Amino acid sequence: MSPRTITVELGDRSYPIVIGSGLLGGGFDLSKHVAGNDCLIVSNETVAPLYLDKLLACVSGISVETISLPDGEQFKTLDTVQSILDKLVESGANRDTTIIALGGGVVGDIAGFAAACYMRGVAFIQVPTTLLAQVDSSVGGKTGVNHPGGKNLVGAFHQPKLVLVDTDTLNTLPERELRAGIAEVIKYGAIADADFFAWLEDSMAKLLAKDAVALAHAVQRSCEIKAGVVAEDERETGRRAILNFGHTFGHAIERCQGYGDWLHGEAVAAGMVMAAEFGELEDSQRERLSNLVEAAGLPVSPPASIGAALREAMGMDKKVLQKQLRFVLLRKLGDAFVTSEYDESRLARVLGVND
Amino acid sequence: MSPRTITVELGDRSYPIVIGSGLLGGGFDLSKHVAGNDCLIVSNETVAPLYLDKLLACVSGISVETISLPDGEQFKTLDTVQSILDKLVESGANRDTTIIALGGGVVGDIAGFAAACYMRGVAFIQVPTTLLAQVDSSVGGKTGVNHPGGKNLVGAFHQPKLVLVDTDTLNTLPERELRAGIAEVIKYGAIADADFFAWLEDSMAKLLAKDAVALAHAVQRSCEIKAGVVAEDERETGRRAILNFGHTFGHAIERCQGYGDWLHGEAVAAGMVMAAEFGELEDSQRERLSNLVEAAGLPVSPPASIGAALREAMGMDKKVLQKQLRFVLLRKLGDAFVTSEYDESRLARVLGVND
Repeated sequence: MSPRTITVELGDRSYPIVIGSGLLGGGFDLSKHVAGNDCLIVSNETVAPLYLDKLLACVSGISVETISLPDGEQFKTLDTVQSILDKLVESGANRDTTIIALGGGVVGDIAGFAAACYMRGVAFIQVPTTLLAQVDSSVGGKTGVNHPGGKNLVGAFHQPKLVLVDTDTLNTLPERELRAGIAEVIKYGAIADADFFAWLEDSMAKLLAKDAVALAHAVQRSCEIKAGVVAEDERETGRRAILNFGHTFGHAIERCQGYGDWLHGEAVAAGMVMAAEFGELEDSQRERLSNLVEAAGLPVSPPASIGAALREAMGMDKKVLQKQLRFVLLRKLGDAFVTSEYDESRLARVLGVND
Repeated sequence: MSPRTITVELGDRSYPIVIGSGLLGGGFDLSKHVAGNDCLIVSNETVAPLYLDKLLACVSGISVETISLPDGEQFKTLDTVQSILDKLVESGANRDTTIIALGGGVVGDIAGFAAACYMRGVAFIQVPTTLLAQVDSSVGGKTGVNHPGGKNLVGAFHQPKLVLVDTDTLNTLPERELRAGIAEVIKYGAIADADFFAWLEDSMAKLLAKDAVALAHAVQRSCEIKAGVVAEDERETGRRAILNFGHTFGHAIERCQGYGDWLHGEAVAAGMVMAAEFGELEDSQRERLSNLVEAAGLPVSPPASIGAALREAMGMDKKVLQKQLRFVLLRKLGDAFVTSEYDESRLARVLGVND
């Protein structure tokens, strides 16, 4: 397969997502996309041993510094951002430096936020190595870190100059993380493309078996949908919120569990099923969603007995507007909408709380 | 005098600068400009006792939280930003919250950066209470904090929704800080308006005596010039750099001194005279600049014998491009340009270093 390019259309901030096999290791010349003469590669202790050398082969001729972060959502903090900023200052990085994130969503979010803040913004390239990062977090410019009070409460919109997706990196991805990424892929079908949803129903076995062609298609279609939504509403003042389908419940689950116990994608999976129960989706479609989530080996409900804690945790969700909860719900598969009108007792029932 | 309004023209990010007397204390209804129903006022331990109550009178009907920072440039750090973010989370602030900065440049820069980062950006209002903040730092959207390796190395462009300048606040401003603010006022004349420069030569005694009419004119003309430059080049990719006249040398002086020993305006004052010496300005004009700086009671040269340290410190200035220094120089009073072409031995002479 030759690489495919999807463009995120954002005027003078437009950028390509290049998707293909064999791009790392020198198959893609990244040096052309580095703004100045130097870059800082931000990776972590898990990904760097696997892919750093291959990425270095793509930036020959450029002066390269690297920093390897500890692996895990618990390190997605302002302190870790500070360590990247320290490294930039130490190496005398100037406004023309480019930060390259090599890793999953956590690495991308942290490195992107450091890029947004250093000298009020330097260039940034995403090289996502997990399915979740490839289909979701690397595209769209959301960067940031967690706060003890909530996920992603601190951050910036800072679009990358390029997203480079080498689908070969999925070969080393642990199965649990693959499934977590598939949760976001299912999300795209559910909110925006019923045909894609049906394709996922047919292809789930192939995706779980890491069939290269199926994975490439899933990544491509997911990125196309996300690119379209982001182009329409870069800063999430409206429609972009549909990308948060499953996330109002999902973030609350993550918060109750403490970050790290459930993977983000797992919480979103259960969150999508909860949102479908909560919304006006008809039973047969709700079952299709639940079945697909289950087929992907993902949870269809939150851990038992955290309902009351969940409701409270939802009060600190970033999508709270005027102190009222906002939900992304489905009219039908492939058709999502955002609403703040909901029935409290129905919410309590979905959360398993006695009203 | 009735209030005057200057608009910073930035498309959908345009905002007014309202300048007048008696605006605080209820003379101006700020509540209309608060996006949601709640705001966080960020001030410091020096300014809050003087003006917090007066500001509260302008936001009646709004739910208000306040945080008072320690006073001083040494607290312009990511840790202080973190304390504001903690306060926002603690008070359950959502995306519709508005952060209001009440104080000088340090408070505005820190609070603005917190506003830029919280939930990837919330609304922000500047109520500057020092001359320097009124004519410079509150306008134009530069926010950020210092890093041990350099000033303002960490930050964001985040435009306020409104800048409210009550010139009465200058009545309580210590004389040394008034003079430091005048340095930036002189800068505007020097880089963009020879007539204004001449007016300053005539009016310096009045400004130092805190003549209300003279100060109001100085603030207004300075804001007009800054607003025009910012509208042309919001993110400093070109012409906006002329606002840094005196700052390449000035920042280096500050760094050698440790932040806080010299006020920013004092370092800029000496920096402007150094830049004039370094540039191609003819002698008579150079003397006029030096004389005006001196008339304002500001330093015309850096502390003796820090030349070598200065040269080194300039290597970490944010305006370094491709590892080459960039200078803002004057062709004549009122006409500035940016250049990276300079004579190293001439630079050494200006710095008092033996080449």
